[in-house]
Amino acid sequence: MTLKIALAQTNFLVGDITANVNNIVKAAVHARDELGADIIVFPELTITGYPAEDLLLRTDFITEANNALYQLADSVAGIAMIVGFPERDGDKLYNSAAVLHQGAIVACYRKRALPNYGVFDEQRYFTAGNQPCVFEFNGLFIGLTICEDVWRLGVIEANKEAGAELLLTLNASPFNSGKIHQREAIICSQVKTAGIPLVYVNQVGGQDELIFDGASFVVDADGEVVFRAAEFKEQISVVEFDGSKPVKSACAPLYNEISSEYQALVLGIKDYVRKNGFQGAILGLSGGIDSALVLALAVDALGADKVEAVLLPSRYTQDMSNEDAVLEAKALGVHYHTIPIEPAVNAFTGMLADIFAGTAKDATEENIQARCRGVILMALSNKQGKLLLTTGNKSEMSVGYATLYGDMSGGFAPIKDVPKLLVYRLARYRNALSQVIPERVIIRPPSAELAPDQVDADSLPPYDVLDPILERYIEKDQSADQIIAAGFRREDVARAISLVDRNEYKRRQSPPGIRITARAFGRDRRYPITSGYRGI
Amino acid sequence: MTLKIALAQTNFLVGDITANVNNIVKAAVHARDELGADIIVFPELTITGYPAEDLLLRTDFITEANNALYQLADSVAGIAMIVGFPERDGDKLYNSAAVLHQGAIVACYRKRALPNYGVFDEQRYFTAGNQPCVFEFNGLFIGLTICEDVWRLGVIEANKEAGAELLLTLNASPFNSGKIHQREAIICSQVKTAGIPLVYVNQVGGQDELIFDGASFVVDADGEVVFRAAEFKEQISVVEFDGSKPVKSACAPLYNEISSEYQALVLGIKDYVRKNGFQGAILGLSGGIDSALVLALAVDALGADKVEAVLLPSRYTQDMSNEDAVLEAKALGVHYHTIPIEPAVNAFTGMLADIFAGTAKDATEENIQARCRGVILMALSNKQGKLLLTTGNKSEMSVGYATLYGDMSGGFAPIKDVPKLLVYRLARYRNALSQVIPERVIIRPPSAELAPDQVDADSLPPYDVLDPILERYIEKDQSADQIIAAGFRREDVARAISLVDRNEYKRRQSPPGIRITARAFGRDRRYPITSGYRGI
Repeated sequence: MTLKIALAQTNFLVGDITANVNNIVKAAVHARDELGADIIVFPELTITGYPAEDLLLRTDFITEANNALYQLADSVAGIAMIVGFPERDGDKLYNSAAVLHQGAIVACYRKRALPNYGVFDEQRYFTAGNQPCVFEFNGLFIGLTICEDVWRLGVIEANKEAGAELLLTLNASPFNSGKIHQREAIICSQVKTAGIPLVYVNQVGGQDELIFDGASFVVDADGEVVFRAAEFKEQISVVEFDGSKPVKSACAPLYNEISSEYQALVLGIKDYVRKNGFQGAILGLSGGIDSALVLALAVDALGADKVEAVLLPSRYTQDMSNEDAVLEAKALGVHYHTIPIEPAVNAFTGMLADIFAGTAKDATEENIQARCRGVILMALSNKQGKLLLTTGNKSEMSVGYATLYGDMSGGFAPIKDVPKLLVYRLARYRNALSQVIPERVIIRPPSAELAPDQVDADSLPPYDVLDPILERYIEKDQSADQIIAAGFRREDVARAISLVDRNEYKRRQSPPGIRITARAFGRDRRYPITSGYRGI
Repeated sequence: MTLKIALAQTNFLVGDITANVNNIVKAAVHARDELGADIIVFPELTITGYPAEDLLLRTDFITEANNALYQLADSVAGIAMIVGFPERDGDKLYNSAAVLHQGAIVACYRKRALPNYGVFDEQRYFTAGNQPCVFEFNGLFIGLTICEDVWRLGVIEANKEAGAELLLTLNASPFNSGKIHQREAIICSQVKTAGIPLVYVNQVGGQDELIFDGASFVVDADGEVVFRAAEFKEQISVVEFDGSKPVKSACAPLYNEISSEYQALVLGIKDYVRKNGFQGAILGLSGGIDSALVLALAVDALGADKVEAVLLPSRYTQDMSNEDAVLEAKALGVHYHTIPIEPAVNAFTGMLADIFAGTAKDATEENIQARCRGVILMALSNKQGKLLLTTGNKSEMSVGYATLYGDMSGGFAPIKDVPKLLVYRLARYRNALSQVIPERVIIRPPSAELAPDQVDADSLPPYDVLDPILERYIEKDQSADQIIAAGFRREDVARAISLVDRNEYKRRQSPPGIRITARAFGRDRRYPITSGYRGI
């Protein structure tokens, strides 16, 4: 007996229950009529999108989601739909998956492993289930699991012991660089041990800081991936099963690391703009590498006609910066303005002259320039309803090498989680597809151009020293001693750590950005601002 | 046999393990030598302070905290110290309380109830303990519990069943308005049921958004409060016990609601400035009620010599606003500057003239004014190392009636969780102590003064309608239908809810502020920015 299972790798809007249910119905009808599917499996918490955060605490929201599930059961016949929803039972809430078939809810599984680390807060909302769920479909016994469940050792085997011949798992597994290999390796290895095939359906799309990468897959009982859906794209695909045995099908190739990082950033911008209803995006173009990369990402995400660039030169801006910025805009076909900031800087300098008389120049004067740019960019954003993209990178965010309300202004910070060295690699990657960033922008020493002849290296260790220290400290939670033991100079480590610690207040007010590393600022690094801990 | 128990209501700096241990030693020696105490009880997680957030994920931090505990055991003899610390056991971490006596750890309790709701994330860090801890001291059997434990029904009784004759509880229980009554009512009622006395020690002080109010207390076996320490102050006090029976002692009176709210705000400003090492504070004084209240709070927290006010009038600022702002500064003895913002506004207007030609005036032009003020205030803050206080209230934060990078600029937002109507009540409360805010500021219609003859009521429902809707929607998670059923007009509810939902992006970039209600923006309301949910 053969069985066709559709994997619905969907990109839903969190909270939009009505639209999500309509899209579930459409996908199910398509899978049934066009793909001949018997079963369609959706991602975790399909009906609400993931993560819905504190919407899950609202009675009206949960009521609407539960009613939607019951209505959904009646909407499509002739195919079993497996749908995730926040299941209310008395005063408890479960992260559940329901099997809807011929107008009835024929099975319902409650997620047992509720992740509460990193970007996850599921124990804030949900009670853990405590039993497996195996249902019969056309004589085949099928087990259900949800995301974190299958990362826990022994869960797949326990499903087999409970009688499952095939396992379906609904997921909302966020992307970070290298995650897909980790995900497939862990799950395939457990599948192999247990010896039952598994269907893994992941959601796709950007949701605030998180990117979900899709790449849903099917593993056979030997632990081999026999089907894989595309990364970073919506896709409804069908896999045929001979009994419980999946028939080998076309596997989408995996992007290499740099390519997947680039795709994740593009998808993140695209979905933030689209899902929040912006008319397009705007950004300041300095002639530096960061804004050059963000411009390329924005154009790849939105199209050149939806992106607007603004050059905001000051007396410290070198000619080559302006020239390169113009080249970037032209190479991508983006409309740009040039607005010198001198009149505003002079106005502020005059207004503060009396109070600042006799004081030495310091970062204050540099910040005024950055903030004048912020005011102009926000004015353009406000007037046109375009999202202002902030162009700061993760290295700057880490050490606070950025001006609050200045270059940190903006609604979304695409490369906030991209360390400077990776900015260079991504720029070279993009140029290899087609030359859009002048070579000079990539090779010249980075500078904020807020003072005469300023370069980043005046204030910071060189990025090939700084970035690895930051990765160890921020992503791996290593101590100063561990980092020094790995071969870094104590003074560099001390400087980097101290800057990271002191600048928590800036990060707290920074715009959201796209998470691409194993630990971004934001949901997965929650530090106090007020803190007396000095790790060195 | 009598026993003297000291309640150490301490105000520690999160993360500063060395200083905290020194202060524990000082307090213990003082309690032993000056107060004749046999036992001293400290708050929850004494050694690290609470909440240490993701510092708790760091190996070096936990190692240091555990080493500190072991060293502490050896530092003071002749008194039993009961100290909270993050206890490492293999790869698990517990929220524990150790009894240190004569150089040994004689008992250790692991917190069983780990709150993971509201502002709490304890399941992110800790494994729950699973047994009570009763230790013998001079023939008396004493049980240990930590904070959330004693809020759970039956826990106090279970300790009695485990043999406890007296219960000690270490706490980090954050303030919100009315919390102290709730706290004492719940605990006294359970104590009465169980029939054993209880010693409740709470920490005090501001930690980012949270205020801990102290008000440690002792309840006798009949459920009567027989001792209470002061609210909002550090205090080491001693209570005598005849066997397990506490001897009635002096109870600090409880502040009434408005007074406790005012004290909480003062303590919040004081501790944020002090613990983060600022030279003082600065704020923009508009002549409106919000900045008038923040000025009074700041002076009460820091002293007039540490506070600086800046008047930033524009063409739309009425004379009475400037006059009242000057009166406020003078009444409190605060140094002030006046810097008209016209030159900067004109500069930006000129710079944008070509691009904005033919467009109608809208919020963009208003925002430019607010942002010019932001640039000036941040320049003064940067130059002088003074903390810029943001003066926006909770009603504004809720509906987004504030300019990002404009009047929202600042390191700390003292009244961010104070609804507008409460701003008025707090102003009247403060004036009743001594007249510092001109009556005209309190009675005139509120206005942002960003356009001719503008008043808040042009854009928003009146505050006596808006504030109760916001309280129901934000603090109580009520649905639109519930709020309408309570007697509010559908159009007011729809407008308020829609503004709250749409302005999540602004709040995400707002400075931290002091939590005084049962649900503040920040740690206890975690909403997605990207969301399709429309509750009306």
